[in-house]
Parts: sequence; C-alpha cells; structure tokens
Amino acid sequence: MITQVQALILAAGKSTRLNTGKSKLLEPICGQPMIMYPIRLLEALQIPITMVVGYQKEEVMSAVQDAAGFPVQFVTQEEQRGTGHAIMCTRDVWQKSTILIINGDTPLTTQQIIKDLVHKHVQTDAAITFITAHYAEAARSGYGRVCVSEQGGIKIVEARNFTGDSESPCCINAGIYLVKKTFLDAYIDALVPNGLTKEIYFTDLVKIASDNGYGVSTLSVPFDSIRGVNTLQELWAIEQIQRADLVKQWMDRGVRFSMPQQVHVDLGVHIGAGTVIKGGVHLTGNTIIGNNCTIAEFNSLHNVSVGDNTTIHSHCIIADSQIQDNVHVGPFAHVRTNSLIQNNSVIGNFVEVKNSTIGEHTKAKHLSYVGDAHIGSKVNIGAGTITCNYDGAQKHATIIEDNVFIGSNNTLVAPLTIHKNSFTAAGSTITKNVPEYSLAFGRARQVTKEGYMRSQGDAQKMVTDPLSAGNDGQNSSGQSFIGATKTHIDTSTVYLD
Amino acid sequence: MITQVQALILAAGKSTRLNTGKSKLLEPICGQPMIMYPIRLLEALQIPITMVVGYQKEEVMSAVQDAAGFPVQFVTQEEQRGTGHAIMCTRDVWQKSTILIINGDTPLTTQQIIKDLVHKHVQTDAAITFITAHYAEAARSGYGRVCVSEQGGIKIVEARNFTGDSESPCCINAGIYLVKKTFLDAYIDALVPNGLTKEIYFTDLVKIASDNGYGVSTLSVPFDSIRGVNTLQELWAIEQIQRADLVKQWMDRGVRFSMPQQVHVDLGVHIGAGTVIKGGVHLTGNTIIGNNCTIAEFNSLHNVSVGDNTTIHSHCIIADSQIQDNVHVGPFAHVRTNSLIQNNSVIGNFVEVKNSTIGEHTKAKHLSYVGDAHIGSKVNIGAGTITCNYDGAQKHATIIEDNVFIGSNNTLVAPLTIHKNSFTAAGSTITKNVPEYSLAFGRARQVTKEGYMRSQGDAQKMVTDPLSAGNDGQNSSGQSFIGATKTHIDTSTVYLD
Amino acid sequence: MITQVQALILAAGKSTRLNTGKSKLLEPICGQPMIMYPIRLLEALQIPITMVVGYQKEEVMSAVQDAAGFPVQFVTQEEQRGTGHAIMCTRDVWQKSTILIINGDTPLTTQQIIKDLVHKHVQTDAAITFITAHYAEAARSGYGRVCVSEQGGIKIVEARNFTGDSESPCCINAGIYLVKKTFLDAYIDALVPNGLTKEIYFTDLVKIASDNGYGVSTLSVPFDSIRGVNTLQELWAIEQIQRADLVKQWMDRGVRFSMPQQVHVDLGVHIGAGTVIKGGVHLTGNTIIGNNCTIAEFNSLHNVSVGDNTTIHSHCIIADSQIQDNVHVGPFAHVRTNSLIQNNSVIGNFVEVKNSTIGEHTKAKHLSYVGDAHIGSKVNIGAGTITCNYDGAQKHATIIEDNVFIGSNNTLVAPLTIHKNSFTAAGSTITKNVPEYSLAFGRARQVTKEGYMRSQGDAQKMVTDPLSAGNDGQNSSGQSFIGATKTHIDTSTVYLD
Repeated sequence: MITQVQALILAAGKSTRLNTGKSKLLEPICGQPMIMYPIRLLEALQIPITMVVGYQKEEVMSAVQDAAGFPVQFVTQEEQRGTGHAIMCTRDVWQKSTILIINGDTPLTTQQIIKDLVHKHVQTDAAITFITAHYAEAARSGYGRVCVSEQGGIKIVEARNFTGDSESPCCINAGIYLVKKTFLDAYIDALVPNGLTKEIYFTDLVKIASDNGYGVSTLSVPFDSIRGVNTLQELWAIEQIQRADLVKQWMDRGVRFSMPQQVHVDLGVHIGAGTVIKGGVHLTGNTIIGNNCTIAEFNSLHNVSVGDNTTIHSHCIIADSQIQDNVHVGPFAHVRTNSLIQNNSVIGNFVEVKNSTIGEHTKAKHLSYVGDAHIGSKVNIGAGTITCNYDGAQKHATIIEDNVFIGSNNTLVAPLTIHKNSFTAAGSTITKNVPEYSLAFGRARQVTKEGYMRSQGDAQKMVTDPLSAGNDGQNSSGQSFIGATKTHIDTSTVYLD
Repeated sequence: MITQVQALILAAGKSTRLNTGKSKLLEPICGQPMIMYPIRLLEALQIPITMVVGYQKEEVMSAVQDAAGFPVQFVTQEEQRGTGHAIMCTRDVWQKSTILIINGDTPLTTQQIIKDLVHKHVQTDAAITFITAHYAEAARSGYGRVCVSEQGGIKIVEARNFTGDSESPCCINAGIYLVKKTFLDAYIDALVPNGLTKEIYFTDLVKIASDNGYGVSTLSVPFDSIRGVNTLQELWAIEQIQRADLVKQWMDRGVRFSMPQQVHVDLGVHIGAGTVIKGGVHLTGNTIIGNNCTIAEFNSLHNVSVGDNTTIHSHCIIADSQIQDNVHVGPFAHVRTNSLIQNNSVIGNFVEVKNSTIGEHTKAKHLSYVGDAHIGSKVNIGAGTITCNYDGAQKHATIIEDNVFIGSNNTLVAPLTIHKNSFTAAGSTITKNVPEYSLAFGRARQVTKEGYMRSQGDAQKMVTDPLSAGNDGQNSSGQSFIGATKTHIDTSTVYLD
Repeated sequence: MITQVQALILAAGKSTRLNTGKSKLLEPICGQPMIMYPIRLLEALQIPITMVVGYQKEEVMSAVQDAAGFPVQFVTQEEQRGTGHAIMCTRDVWQKSTILIINGDTPLTTQQIIKDLVHKHVQTDAAITFITAHYAEAARSGYGRVCVSEQGGIKIVEARNFTGDSESPCCINAGIYLVKKTFLDAYIDALVPNGLTKEIYFTDLVKIASDNGYGVSTLSVPFDSIRGVNTLQELWAIEQIQRADLVKQWMDRGVRFSMPQQVHVDLGVHIGAGTVIKGGVHLTGNTIIGNNCTIAEFNSLHNVSVGDNTTIHSHCIIADSQIQDNVHVGPFAHVRTNSLIQNNSVIGNFVEVKNSTIGEHTKAKHLSYVGDAHIGSKVNIGAGTITCNYDGAQKHATIIEDNVFIGSNNTLVAPLTIHKNSFTAAGSTITKNVPEYSLAFGRARQVTKEGYMRSQGDAQKMVTDPLSAGNDGQNSSGQSFIGATKTHIDTSTVYLD
C-alpha cells in the first residue's frame, strides 16, 4: 500500500516569526534538526522523499544530506509564492499514484498517523485526504480552518483570510495531505493566486475537489501530534513534549529519574535498566549509558558511552569519550575528545582528561590535566599533575606505563615516557624518559631560614592585618619579610630565586 | 486505643513493573527507603510492627534494621502467593485485639489517617475497616475496586479480575485495613486461591465478612495520601509530592526558595529562618542549615552542618562535614569526609578539602588540594597548593599552625608540620618541618637567556601560527626555540632540566 | 490627566507572615527589591511619589534612595495602626486633585491598569475608584472582600472581619485606590479604629463614600496583575510570573531557550536575537548578551556584558566583567571583578580570572589562576599557571606582553613583567622580569635513580596493594621506596629535597 506513495516535504518557507535570523528547520529538537523528523518518519515507512527547498536552501540541504542516510531529492522553489506554487515546482517528480504532502515543521507526527491516513485515503477512494485536529486556541493561531464551502462541500481557509466566527470551535488543517496523482495532474493548474496575498494556496485544491464532485476525506488526530512551529514558544512546546515522551519511555524500561522534569534527553540516547538519572542531567547526541549506573546532578554527557555500574558524580562534562565499567568520574571532571577511561579507574575533581587513555585501576583524583596521554593500569597520578602536551608549536604525547606512581604537583613535559614500576617525587618537573623501576625527581632542595620572621608582632600583623605592616611590606628591622615576593629578593641576602 | 493495635506490613512482593531489578521498597524517596515510611509512621504511633518479607528479603530486612531504631519483627513468606497468603504466614504473631494491615509501598499515609481509621473501626465496631479513595484514573490503574457484592454487601475486586464498567467512577481499595483478631482467627482459612491467578487475596475477606453479617466500614481519604508505587512514574509522582510538601513546610518557616520547583530537600534536612535557597540546590541526608545563610544555585550538600550567616557560593559539593558561621565556600569547592571549616574562613574556587580542619579566619581561595590536614587560624594557603598526603602506601597528615603564609603553587609533602608565624616561598616543595618564625623555600633560581628567541619573525610565527614554524619545531638558526620541550633540551646547550 | 495625580505608596507594615525577620519589601523579585516595582511603575507614568514607611524604615528608604533615580518623598508612620492611619500621616503632602494609593507589595501591577483606573475615575467622576479582582481562593486568603453594604451601597470588609459566606465567589479588594483630594480632606477624619483590632482601615472610606451618596467606582482586573505578597509562597508565585513573562518577551525577540522553565532572568537583562540559552542559566543584574551567542547549561552571569558569537560553555560563573566577541569561556571557568576578555580569546576549564585583562587571541585553557594581571594578545598561558598576586600584605600586578608563551605549571611571582615574544619553561617559578625575546626558566634539573625500585614485587605490591608493603613503607632491602616522602629522605642517601 505504502509502496504506491511518494512524499513531498515543504521546506522552502521563511521563518520570520522566529526572529532568530535562521531557518527554523535547522533548529534542534532533542538533538535532531527539526527537518530530520519528517525525514526519519518517511524513511521508517520507506516512502521516497522529494523536498522543496528555498529559504536558506544550502543550509537545509546540507543538514539533510549529512544526516539522512536515505536518498532525498531536492527541488528548489526560487520564490516563496505559497504552498500551491511549491507543489507546482515538483511536477516533474510525480511518479507514484499517491502523493503525500507534509510540512517540514510538524516534527511530532507519528508513523501510525501516516498509516491511518493512507488507510483512510484508500478506504474512501478520495481525491484528497488530509489531517485535521481540534485546537482550542485556533482563533489566535496561524492554522488554516476547515469549513463548509459555499456549495456545501469542504474547504480550508487560511488563517489570514478567515472571516467566520473566530471563536467558534473549529477544526484546523494540519498541512498533511494525501492526493491522487491523477487528480493533481488534472487540477494543479486550477490554483490561482489569492487576491489579497498574491500567494497560491495548495489548500484551495480541497474546495476545487469538493466543488467538482471529487471525494475529500479527513482524518482527525490529537493536536499535539501535528503541532507546527512558527514561534520560539511553539518550538519550546514541541521540544518539551518530545523530551517528556523520551523520559517516559526510559522510565518504562527501568530507568529512575529523580527529577525528570529537569532532565534533557536526546533522541539518540540509550539508558540501561537500573540506572539512576538525577536532576539537571543533559544526555545528548548518541550517548549510551549501561545498567545500574548513577548519573548525578548537573552532569552533561554528549556522545559518551558509559559501561555498567559506573558512577558519574555531579557537575561533570563528558564528551566524545568512552567510560567503561565500575568507573568513578567527578565531581567536577571534564573528559573529552576521544578519551577512554577503562574499568575500575577513578577520575576525580578538577581533573581534565583530553584525548587520553586511562588504564584499569588507575587514579587521577585531583586538579590535574591529562592531555594526549596514554596511561597504563594501576597508575597513580598525584594531585596537581600537568601533562605539558603543547610546546607552542605542536602537541606531544605522554606515555605512563603500568604501576607508575606520579608524585603530586608534577610537571610532565611531553614527549615523555615513564616506564613501568617507576616513581616520580612530588613537585618534580620531568623532562626526560624514566626507565623501569626508577625513581625520578626534579625539584630544588628545601632551605629553611629560621628566625627570619623576626618578631611575633610583625608576623601577626602581617597575616591578620596586612596593611598595618607598613607601606613597603617590610618588617620592623627594615627587611622585607614577604618571602614570596621580588621585593624581598631584591633587599635581602637570601636567594629565593 | 492504639495500644490494642499491632501492625502487619506487607513487604514480600516483587517489583516487576519497575524494571530496575531491585525491590521498589528500597528505592529512596527524599532520602529514605520507601519501606521506612510506614515504619516511621507506625513508630510515631507506637504500634508494634511485624513485616512480611519475601522478595529480596535480606536487603529489605537489612535496610529496615539499619535505620529503624524501633523493633521490627520479620516473618518470611517463602512463595509470593498473594496478600491473603502473606497474612496467613503471620498467624503466630497475632497478639493484639486489632490487626492493622498496611502495604509497604504507600509512603504518603499520615498519622491522622491511621488515627481516623482506628476511630472509625472502634466507633462502628466493624470486623474489618479499610481505607478507600476516589481515583479518576482507576480504570487504567492496578488498584482493587470497591463494589457492591452479589448479596448486597461490600466487596473488593482486584483490578485484574474486575469486569464491571471500567470507566464508571469507582472507589479504589488503598490496601490499609484494620481487622479484629477474633474475626481473622475465625475466617482466615476461608480464603481460597483465586481460580484465575491461583493467588490468595486478602481482599476476599471483605466479602466474607459482609456475606456473613459482620460489620465492614470504610474510611475515604484523598488519593494522594494513599498513592502506591508500582511503576517508576508512580514513584516519581510520590517523591514529587513529598518534595513539594517539604519545601512548603520550610517556606512557612521563613526559608526563601527562589526556584523551589528545582530544589531537592530530604526528609532529614533542617533549614533556619532567613536563609535563601537558590535554584537547583540539593540538600540531602541529615543536612542542617543555620539562619540567614545563602545556598546559591547548583549546590549539593549531603550530611552537612552549616552555621549562621554563611554563604555557599554556587556549584559546590559538600559532604559529611561541618561549616561554621560567617564562612564563604565556593564557587566550585568540594569539601568532604569529616572536614571542619571554622568561623570566618574562606574556601575558594577549585579547592578540595578532605578530612581536614580549617581554622578561623583562614583562607584557601584557589586551585588547592587540602587533604588530611590540620590548618590553624589566620593562615593563608596560596593558590595552587597541594598537600601530598599519599605516598603510594599510606596517607600522612599536614599540620599548619596559626598565622602561617603558604606561598602559591606549593607542594607540601606530608607528614609535615609548619609551625606558627612561618612563611613559605611561592613555587616551593616543602618536605621538612618548618620551625616558628621561619622562612622556607625550595625552588630553583630563575635563569633568563636574553635574545634566545632569535628573531621576531620566529616567535611571532610560533605563537600565532605554530604549524608554519617548520616541521621540527626549530627556529631559523636550527635551534629549537621551544623552551618547554625535550627537543630543545637535546639540541641546545641550555640546561632546562 | 495623569498630571493631576500624586501617589502614596504604603510601605510601613510589618512582614510577620514571611518569618524571615526582614521586610518583605526588600526581597528581590527578578533582581529588584519588591518596593522598586511600584516606584518604577509610577516613575514611568511620571506620577510623584510619597512613601509611607515604618517597619525597617531605614532599610526601605535606603533601598529606594539607592536605586530610584526619581525623587521619592518619605513620611513616617511611627506606629503601625492600619492603612487609614497611614494615609492620615500623609495629610501634609496632599497637593494634587487626585490621590493614588497603592500598596508596596503588589509588584505586578501594570501601567495600563493605572491608566485604566484613572480613566474610569475621571469618566465616572467618582469620589473613590478602586481595583478589584476575582480570586477563587478568596476565602482562604487575607484579601478584603468587596460587599454590598447594609444601605445597599458598596463596602470593603477586611478578611479578618469578614463574616459572610466565606465560600461564595466574591470580589477582592486589590488595595489600589484613586481618591479625590476634596473627598479625602472632608472625610479622612471620619475613619475610626476598628472595635476588634483597634486599627484604622482605609477601606472603611468606601462605605463612608457610598453611604454619603458619593460615587464609588471599581475596575476589575486579572488577579495575577494585582497579587500581593504576604507569605514566601506568594512571593515565589509572583517571581515565577515575572520570570516567565521576561522569558516570553525574550523568546518573542528571537532568543531560544531550551528549558525556559529552569532559567532565571532578571529585569535588567538584555539578550540579543539568535542567542541560545540552555537549562539552568541564571542571568542577573545588568547582564547584556549579544547576538548569536550560546550560554550553555548551569551558567551564572551577573552584571556581565557579552559580545556577539561568543560561547559560554557550561558550569561557568562570570560576574562584573566584559566578554567580547567570538570568545570561548569554560566549562568550569570563573571570571570576576572587572575582568575583560577580548575578542577571539579562550578561557578554559578550572581557570579563574580576577581583575585582569586578557588580550585578543590569547588562551588560558587549564587549571590556572590569573589575578590582577594584564595579558597581551596571542599569549599562551600554560596549564596550571598561577599568578602569585598576594604576598600576605599587598596585591601586585602581573604584566604579560604580546606573543608570550608561558609554560605549564608556572609560578609567576608579582610584581612581574614578561616582555613580548618571550618564553618560560614548564615548571618554572618566575620572580624577575623577563626581557623581550628571552627564554626564562627556574626549575631543578631532573635526576633519575635507575633500579631504585628494587624488585618488581615491591613496586607491584606498592601500587596495587599498598598496605601489604609493610608497616613502615620500606622495601625488602630496608630502604624506603616512597620517593615522595620525608621517610625516604631521612633514610636514604638520595637527595630528594
């Protein structure tokens, strides 16, 4: 049945009421550009697609070509002269016996609705079958209204031309039609520009069919499923519906959301049973979460694969990376750019991991930057460790083999390999490779100048009320007691530098 | 009156519709496992408890035993053969004249409802008194329906066996009963397995009582107060109600919530008057907040005690710690594991404090890790300071006495004591104890190679367009000008390492 | 017309039902103290203002004087003896022919409502015209009720004195009146203290007018526009309405909010078209966002100016600073205190910028503290760099000129100037100025002790199972193998310090 159908997606119109300066069809809804919704719908139904493009056509075509994976034919409507004119532009591609016409901006339409529409069309042998919905706010909306024509038939009146009782409860036209190709061939040229707007409305064809004795059928569906987008508020409403629907689906499959109304889940996301998703979590792109994980509050995961029994503590950002099983990440961790965190490892707070592999049972728990590194298993990365992967010209790799202990506050200058079972001392700058079973250090020896802080009074004043210690930051003996400043270095005999 | 009552909590059933693989009774609702709600209710009413356990009974018993503080007797229902069978299993423990039967999964029932139920039961001298509620969605729910029996009496029909007009507005059975022990003794064995499901329904006893001329009373209560949990969506609804109720209570006591619909507050939390709680805040466990505090957005506090007039800036995570008066914490601070932040101190951004005491008027404002440390009062911890508390084998303590100034980027290797009124220079690694009034430093002297960046062109290219500087990262004279890399070290006469 | 009107704002009452210990009039609503709402309203209408103050009058007057920019006259009501008494206190300032009386706690009243009220008052030539609203919850509210008086006229009955059918749908009194000065002069003294409460109610004047044959008019408006605040819940409701209204306004102007119900926008904020605001964003104070920016989730911007095409990645806090065009900030960045981030620069994760200028095309991407610094253009600040701006006594400046490359983990001791086209080596402490085209370094040379980790077994045990390595943290040869600890330093011949 569906094999006799081809689809025309109308995607040429401007999006003036959005005020964003961009085509609304490119606005993402749960991670997918709006225009991809009808494409995915038709793809699932195996209905060939021709898309009429116009406004920002390069961007629209590019978005579709990048993501579709299903051949889409494009026809350009050079001037935006109305829906009827858009259909006229496609005349050359009409091949199937039934033409499905659908707007590019009704993303929530379901497969079942299209199936029902085809069924109704076939069953009633109509020339045109179209979808209607009841909408309480019809009077204040831009939807065309379904009315009785002067000759007793059915017609659609565009909102701007509607002169009836605006408050009377009235069916709206959803903008989704099935039309017999034979009827279209015969009557498309009967459409004429509207006297007022000079646009050619496809909707006039309903009256034409009706007036000429052709069958016209309608299928009434819930308004939410055919909502269109003309303003940013309507876009929000649609994404809200889509988002709530996705969350509900995952709840049904055993995912616990503690504050589901605050969670953003994209269409491409998968979440395993037994997993807990807390408030404010954003799961976007093709993120896949395993079973029995905890994704704590205020986490954002984009294109991330997470194994089973893993905990992402709160306030983490993870992108384009893989986190395996029984891993702890965060809080306040940032993992990105093709990183791989292997089983049973720990990435702690204020730690950034970029384009790196972290082996099993390895820990980097505090204030570290691990970039372009390959870290083995059972490695301990001390707090404050920095991999210096950039020399101003190029990025270099750091390799740390199994069972290495990196002391705190280490500066690891790449390219660098620290071989297995080695240690580095806290506070070291490591610039040369370290062989196996070695101890490496690179730091100055501590010097302690006793009594340097001459009087208790000075020190006391210094710390508790710094400004009272004198204008020049010196102590009562005339010497600077500010160990950490150049002032001191210049005026004393102690070499601090 | 209540002293003649004992309670049976039914907690043996499976939680198949949750799809989490875990018993729903262990799911937390505002920080308490669901099963603790009826226990706390009965505890408050001083009604002795027998709990029928079965599915995941070890876990359920363990959760109850850990937290109850009120003796709970357990009876095991080996096979889940229905509620009637569950009651049969408890026969040996029936001692009081009145038996209260309550499901483990109706957490929002109030003391007043139980008191009203007892009052109705006594007043009407009924054999069975049970709670009903009107529920508009009864037809699409799993609740048993209260109907007129064939003999004109009252009966309860389980949802799966209900064959009446499913849409007729109908009372549902809340699953909370008071039964005379004498009646139970006499008729419990009259219960027989259902022909369809083979389960023994306790609800059949209502019809038996009615048919045999015993009094049956009902008490109608609002549906929200007896909501049960069979799906994760129902669990969400219940937590949402509980959460909103808690927030409302704290509002009434003078706590301002700027975005209350986004806040999570656990049952065990206390908040002082005049305190402001901003959006996204999570207050969990036994967190206690004093008066006139500000808890800014996206903070998570778990088992934390906060004094008066303290500000927790946004994006902090604090757990199992005490924050005293007039303290500033955050933004982006992480305080955990028995830490104590004393009056008038400041913990700043990207600072982690673990298992440490921070004295009064002490500051650690930037990018530091303070672990296993005891810091005195009026201490300044410079930016980037790391306490190296872990040597790969053990954790060691760092002690910093009063009035000490720790320079920036210090590496403090524990075990270490820095005595009062001492200074450490910026960039130092401190490995040995520092006496009072001392200045300690441990860093290399600066060397400056003037003109080393040979030509302006090279340097310019280097920084602005690194890749154009040549494949090998060397300058036009053939020498590497990348000061920070080994390449340079190997090819020049300058010792950078 | 409006030029004949002067306004009295009643702002003397206590706020006992808030329980915060503070005047409700000072509570912020979308960033403005509640009392500023009627002031801004009257200012826009050019109506001169007299404010009756009493409870916490210093604080209220101070808030108004700080922010009004429009002359406000104050009259003190020493004792809180009712609204009638409050009006009596203002007798000396009555000058215009029409007196507008408005409560200080109805922040959502619009200019149109006041205009309509004046129009009605003039048109009907009434002695008193006041605003009413229908409120379904009137019976459970504190609002006065508009009733038919005993003599067939109109009267207002204060909620506490209302004895009619409390559930009957009834108009409430919004507390906003227009009164002819002549009528007020003649009848103000006719007000007497209520027998029950001893307060003098201004509302009694309506009955007095009515009973004495004067015209009384009413203007009915939507309840939301005249909501008053007596509890924290009512305050929440009002802020919620105001917040939603602001978000809607920005949506209409082309701003996309992905989760608008989670966003907080203050009254003083401006957002450019094409900008995307994600969930949980707080835009407060006088924040101004340009066109086509992305403000990702969980960002808080207070008094920040952002240019065009700039991305603020998630989890950032920015305050009192300027971010220019094409800048990337965050995630996890903290920019504050008069900082300026110039075009095309990048501030990365776990980076704090305080009171600093960051030049164009400059990057500080990881774990750095930049305080009191002036950084030129095309500078690279290596990961882990700290500007040591505080010596315990004073703050000092760091100046880094154009095209400088600061190596990772640098400690820059201010006051310090690093002149253009220079490099510093990774891990350096820089205490002295660096001339142009120089290479500066200040770090120890690396020493590697090969074979120091004697046996694989030891090291293995060490890292994987630290506690099995012996009580004293030493290896099988009796020597400590914990490179980073003092234990080692004391017992071996290797100088680690």
